[in-house]
Amino acid sequence: MENLLGGIEAGGTHFVCAVGNSPENIKDQTSFLTTTPRKTMETVINFFRPHKNITGIGIGSFGPVDLDKNSSTYGMITTTPKKDWRNVNILEITKSSLDIPVNIDTDVNAALLAEHKWGNAKNKDNVIYITVGTGIGGGAILNGKLIHGLSHPEMGHMKIPRNSNDNFEGVCEYHRDCLEGLASGKAIEKRLKENITNHDKTIWEFESQYLGIAISNLILSMSPQRIVLGGGVLNHEGLIDDVRIQTLKSLNNYVYMDEIISDIDSYILPPYLGDNAGVLGAILLAK
Amino acid sequence: MENLLGGIEAGGTHFVCAVGNSPENIKDQTSFLTTTPRKTMETVINFFRPHKNITGIGIGSFGPVDLDKNSSTYGMITTTPKKDWRNVNILEITKSSLDIPVNIDTDVNAALLAEHKWGNAKNKDNVIYITVGTGIGGGAILNGKLIHGLSHPEMGHMKIPRNSNDNFEGVCEYHRDCLEGLASGKAIEKRLKENITNHDKTIWEFESQYLGIAISNLILSMSPQRIVLGGGVLNHEGLIDDVRIQTLKSLNNYVYMDEIISDIDSYILPPYLGDNAGVLGAILLAK
Repeated sequence: MENLLGGIEAGGTHFVCAVGNSPENIKDQTSFLTTTPRKTMETVINFFRPHKNITGIGIGSFGPVDLDKNSSTYGMITTTPKKDWRNVNILEITKSSLDIPVNIDTDVNAALLAEHKWGNAKNKDNVIYITVGTGIGGGAILNGKLIHGLSHPEMGHMKIPRNSNDNFEGVCEYHRDCLEGLASGKAIEKRLKENITNHDKTIWEFESQYLGIAISNLILSMSPQRIVLGGGVLNHEGLIDDVRIQTLKSLNNYVYMDEIISDIDSYILPPYLGDNAGVLGAILLAK
Repeated sequence: MENLLGGIEAGGTHFVCAVGNSPENIKDQTSFLTTTPRKTMETVINFFRPHKNITGIGIGSFGPVDLDKNSSTYGMITTTPKKDWRNVNILEITKSSLDIPVNIDTDVNAALLAEHKWGNAKNKDNVIYITVGTGIGGGAILNGKLIHGLSHPEMGHMKIPRNSNDNFEGVCEYHRDCLEGLASGKAIEKRLKENITNHDKTIWEFESQYLGIAISNLILSMSPQRIVLGGGVLNHEGLIDDVRIQTLKSLNNYVYMDEIISDIDSYILPPYLGDNAGVLGAILLAK
C-alpha cells in the first residue's frame, strides 16, 4: 500500500489542502479563502476526515510561527498582522482534531522544500526562496538544509532605502516602510487605490526597484547559488525581468560572479511548481 | 612532535602572522601595516621562512576573494577598493614561495571560525560575525558550517535606509551609500574631517542607527542564535550598547524571541578572542 500524506498550505489569503506524495501523485486537493480561524480550520478538518489512510500531515503556514519544539506555544501563529489569527495554534488544532502526527514550518520554507526536491532549487545546496503575495516572505536552504536558527527568517521585513520620489507611507504595522510595507501585494493594492499623481507605471517601477535592492541585499548576505522568486504579485507582466535588471543595478558589478553577471535569467527564476509549490512542500514536511 | 600551523590574517589595514595551534599555544606572532602587495607579501614570507616545522598555512583575507577551487583565479583578491591589491593571488604567492599547503577564506570567516571553536560563537550552529573596521565585513555559520554558496558573503555592502538628517555622500566606490559607504571606519574618518554643522555625537548616533538596522536585517534574513560584533570601530565607548538598542528599535518587537527581546546583551557580543580572532581563525583554516 502506498504511503499517502496530507499537506496544508496555510496562506494569509487562501488555504490549499492536498493528499498525495508527489507532484504526479495527488489524490485529492482543495483550496478556499482564509476567513476566521474557526471556519477555516473546520474546512481543513472536514477535508482530511474521510482520508483515513494518510499517515501524517505537514503544514506550511503564514507567520510568524513558533517553531521551537520545546516551547509551550509550539505551532502557534504569533505576531501576524492578521489579528484574528494571533495566538491560534494551527498545529494543535489539526493534531487533536484528526489524531495524527503533524509537522509545521513556514509557507515559504514549505514551498522551498518542494522546489528543492522537484523544481528550480534542485541540486542546489544554497538557495533562497522569496514570495511576494499579500505579504512578503523568504526562506533559505544553506549548507543543504533549511535555516532555522532561533526561529525562521522573516526576510520580508528587512529595511531598504526608498526611492526619493516615493511618498507612499507603507503598510507594515510593525515597521511601516520595510520591504513588505512598501512592496507587498497589500502595499500595491493601496498604492493603486491612492494613486492620483503617478502613473501606475511608476508604482511598478518602485516595485521592481525595491525587490531588486532586497534581493541584492540577500545575495550580499548569503551568497546563494540561485534565487526562486514566486507569489501572486510576480504574475504582473514583465516584473520578474525588471527585478533581474534592478538586482544587477543594485549590486553594480561588485559581486562579480559569472552566474549572476552573465546569466541572471537562470539565477533568478520563478518556482517550477508554480502555485503548487506550497502544498507539495507541506506534504514533504509530513514525511 | 606537536603539529604547528601558520596563520595569516590579511587585513586591509594591517597583517598579522602567527605560528601555533590554539589561543594558549602561539609560538611566534607578528603584525605590520598593509602596504604594497610586493612589500607586504615579502614580510609575510620572511616571517614564515625560518619556521620549517609548520605543516600548513591558512589565510583569512580581506576581499572579495575568489574561493572557487575550480576557478583559474582561485585565491585571488578581486574587486577590492584597494586598487594595488586587485588581482593579487595571495594564496599562490604564499604557496609557491614557501612550498607548503595553503588554504584561504575571508578574514571575517576566519575570525568567525575561531569564535566558533574557542569564543562567543561556541556551541552555536547558527551565528553571524560582523566586523566594522576600515571596511565592513560579515560571515555566517548556518546549519553548523560556514556559508559559501556561490562565493562568500559581502554583508557590508547591503543597502539600508539613511537617516533623513544625514547628508554624507558615502565612501563606497561601488555603491556610494551602502552600509560600508555610510558606517565603515573609512566613512567615520571622512565624516569627522568634514564635520562642520554636526556635533561628533551625531556621527556616532548615525553609526549606531545604521549598524542596528543592518543587524536587524541580518536577523530577519537568517534568524541567527547569536551575533558577534567586532572590529576597531566598536572600540568607541558605548557604541556596542547603542547598537543593541538600535537593533531592538529597528525590529520593533516583530521578531518576538526571548533571546533577543529580554537578553540583547548576550545576543550581540564582542569577540571573546578580541583582536586575535582573525589570526587564530587563519590557523584553523590551515587544519
